[in-house]
Order: sequence, then structure tokens, then C-alpha cells
Amino acid sequence: MRMTRILQLAGAALVLSLRGAVAQEPQVPFVRIAELEIDPAQLESYKAAVKEEIETSIRVEPGVLAIYAVAEQDNPSKLRFLEVYADEGAYNAHIQSAHFRRYVQTTKDMIISRRLIDTVPILLGAKKQ
Amino acid sequence: MRMTRILQLAGAALVLSLRGAVAQEPQVPFVRIAELEIDPAQLESYKAAVKEEIETSIRVEPGVLAIYAVAEQDNPSKLRFLEVYADEGAYNAHIQSAHFRRYVQTTKDMIISRRLIDTVPILLGAKKQ
Repeated sequence: MRMTRILQLAGAALVLSLRGAVAQEPQVPFVRIAELEIDPAQLESYKAAVKEEIETSIRVEPGVLAIYAVAEQDNPSKLRFLEVYADEGAYNAHIQSAHFRRYVQTTKDMIISRRLIDTVPILLGAKKQ
Repeated sequence: MRMTRILQLAGAALVLSLRGAVAQEPQVPFVRIAELEIDPAQLESYKAAVKEEIETSIRVEPGVLAIYAVAEQDNPSKLRFLEVYADEGAYNAHIQSAHFRRYVQTTKDMIISRRLIDTVPILLGAKKQ
């Protein structure tokens, strides 16, 4: 009986401790990498559309923390994106947004291939701006 | 003769205009992507070493603007980095730094493969922190 009580207390302590850990744990950003190949003939149009989409997302969506878009120097129509969202909910809100849907519609015939890679952040180190 | 003089003036104006453009153009960051595969048995040691290297670089090097390190969710020993330097000079200074050299020395037997990709930024969109 005594052991049962100890286990109950230990269980309660564990629950409290886990709750505390969940409450205190810093929010882990959701980071998505994308690799896109764009039709070279439509590359400039694609870049214009994606720049507008990124600028709008950063400006109006609280949960879109960063979207970095670069081209491979040796393959300018191969683009890479690293996107940082406050959490997975922020990412889901982003892909439902009017500006993202407009971007998808505008660029759907410009994209030859798309690879999306879900990631687990190790460290997102950045200077304070 | 009159045409020659006009061409000379036009040439001088072009040079001044180009100089002006160079002086006023915002500095283009240097963005490097790296894809590394780490020996799974040494993954935690590698992560500890690279975290220390990133934290030190961001803290002490003015030209290291951001280093994002993530693991592929489906291949945790495949890591991807996106590194933003103020310019190529800042990148060259970084790889000569004592902390970077120490990281290279510490991790050289942990890295199975490394692919470095030079890039041309399209847009580096980030919230003000």
C-alpha cells in the first residue's frame, strides 16, 4: 500500500514536471526546405511572382519568420528555399492564405519540378536585426 | 570632331553613373548552402560541435548574419545549412577564424560527405527581430 502511494505521488510529480516542461519549452520553429526547377524561359516571371509572395507573407503573416530564396550559381533555374515558420500551424495558415494561393495559380506552369523537405532544426543562428 | 566630343562626354557620364550605382547599390549578401552527411554514430558529437561553432560565429563575427542548421526529418544524419554572410569577404574571414578551424579539426572524422553550393540570392525575406 505504501509503495502504491509512493508511485501515485511519483506519477503526479511526473505529470506536473512534464506540464512545466511543455509550458516552459521554447516554441520550436517549423523549417521547410524546397528545391524547385523553373522553366528557364519563364524564370524572370517566376522570380517576380515569388518575390511578391515572399514580401507579402513576411509583411502580413505574424507566423512567417523568414523565407530565403536563392538560385544555384551554376544552375540559375534551380532555386532553393529555406522557410522558417513560428510553428506548423503558421505554415498551414500560410498555404491557405490568399496571396499564397495566387502565387500557386500564377506560377503553376512555370515550375518543372518541386521537392519539399521537412526538417528538424538543429540551430537557427541569426544576428539581431 | 563634335560627335567625338559628345561620345567622350557620354562615356564620362556613363562612368560616373556606374560609379554612383556601385556606391548606392545595397550590399548583396553571400549565401552558401551546404549538405552534409554525418556518421550516425557520431551525430550527437557533431551537433554539439557545430552548435558551438555557429553560436560563436554569430556572436563574434560582424559579417556572419545567419547560419541555419537543420536535419532532414526522414534522414536525421543528413544535415543542411544555409549561411548568410555580409559579403564574400566576410565568408573568407569566417573560414580563417580560430573557431571555424577548431570546428573543422574536431569534426573532420565525423563527416561522411559534404556538398557546398554557391548561390545567388533572389530574396532574403525575414521579420525584424
